[in-house]
Amino acid sequence: MLSKNEIKRIKSLSQKKFRDEEGLFIVEGEKMVAEALASDFEVEAVYRTSEIGEEAMGRISALSSPSPALAVVRIPASGGIPAPAEDELLLALDSLRDPGNVGTIIRLADWFGIRTILASPDTVDIYNPKVVQATMGAIFRVRFIYCDLPATLSAMRGRGIPVYGTFLEGDDIYKSSLTKGGVIVMGSESNGIGQDVAALVDRKLYIPPFPPEGTGSESLNVAIATAITCSEFRRR
Amino acid sequence: MLSKNEIKRIKSLSQKKFRDEEGLFIVEGEKMVAEALASDFEVEAVYRTSEIGEEAMGRISALSSPSPALAVVRIPASGGIPAPAEDELLLALDSLRDPGNVGTIIRLADWFGIRTILASPDTVDIYNPKVVQATMGAIFRVRFIYCDLPATLSAMRGRGIPVYGTFLEGDDIYKSSLTKGGVIVMGSESNGIGQDVAALVDRKLYIPPFPPEGTGSESLNVAIATAITCSEFRRR
Repeated sequence: MLSKNEIKRIKSLSQKKFRDEEGLFIVEGEKMVAEALASDFEVEAVYRTSEIGEEAMGRISALSSPSPALAVVRIPASGGIPAPAEDELLLALDSLRDPGNVGTIIRLADWFGIRTILASPDTVDIYNPKVVQATMGAIFRVRFIYCDLPATLSAMRGRGIPVYGTFLEGDDIYKSSLTKGGVIVMGSESNGIGQDVAALVDRKLYIPPFPPEGTGSESLNVAIATAITCSEFRRR
Repeated sequence: MLSKNEIKRIKSLSQKKFRDEEGLFIVEGEKMVAEALASDFEVEAVYRTSEIGEEAMGRISALSSPSPALAVVRIPASGGIPAPAEDELLLALDSLRDPGNVGTIIRLADWFGIRTILASPDTVDIYNPKVVQATMGAIFRVRFIYCDLPATLSAMRGRGIPVYGTFLEGDDIYKSSLTKGGVIVMGSESNGIGQDVAALVDRKLYIPPFPPEGTGSESLNVAIATAITCSEFRRR
């Protein structure tokens, strides 16, 4: 049995304020809980419907349809920004706010062997339950670092690392030569890449519509654009 | 001023049952409302916060943060399944349930010039407000047809149209030769493509991870896989 206080404490982890205070986040679903246990992350506790009952699970879960398992996991220390290995590909997210998009990007980054994602401080918190669930476990394998994006990108450029980004006035990605390594910057849905960050992008790319004169849609969803860009880098 | 009954009627359109009964759906946001008005769709009414007030808008809106405009739009007659033009590319969705994924797929289909999407009857209703909003207006430009997918794909194969689908045991999409036209089948997140539909796919494709031995993630989100597949067809 879970006490009222325990239920309240776990439930509170759906909010960033309490995650920050406690240094904990929640993970839901048998598969996600198994991935947490198999990872380097420290699992504080696992709760199962078979032990605590459906009512208590319904109260601690952040899902509209709770699953049979939920784990409380410690947020790892963020650490510094590692110097990228030669030919390493990184992502940098500028002010992405939608939890589903960020979770989906972490998942596809993992698929395409991207080990580090940089993000501006105003990007959505990745320990938000909606982000965690959308990663489908990739959150345990990809390093996510909130940082001063202009300063970090500027330092990378100083080390000769190419900085890519997608822009409406960029070069056709299908026809551009792409280096093996580099940083790919993705901007927010509503505003694209911010001016200070855009100034640091030395290779502007564009995903052309088909036919090239367009169809009416003005843009692609940011997770979709990220996927196509990563696919183009990796297929070559 | 909106009457209680009007509010109740508009609000009810968030549910499929009432959309089916009334033959209407709702569209929210200035840009979406403008796209509805500019489209072939019949707009029954437009409501603005400046006219009806914030409280009434909050009650008729399906969004957690209502926007200043909402339109009630007539659901178009579905019509039959058109014979694909030569070299036409179509999508077919098998049992996709997530509104965000389906909305995102309609949006990217529009970007890639795909004019018709076929879907199994158990695919989520595209007039669900979450689907509508995720399309960002593409719902007014792409024809979406619910149909008996095995029968339809079988008929297309009979006419010599290639049927593609993504499978774990498929051929590397980056190395496969792809025809200009055809149907691309995408399966549900949880179960992939159903057996009866899979039996009709004559060209199985696979999006390989990087590095090819994989990273831990077992799959890509279905909208992401659709985007990469469409990008591969269109870039060539």
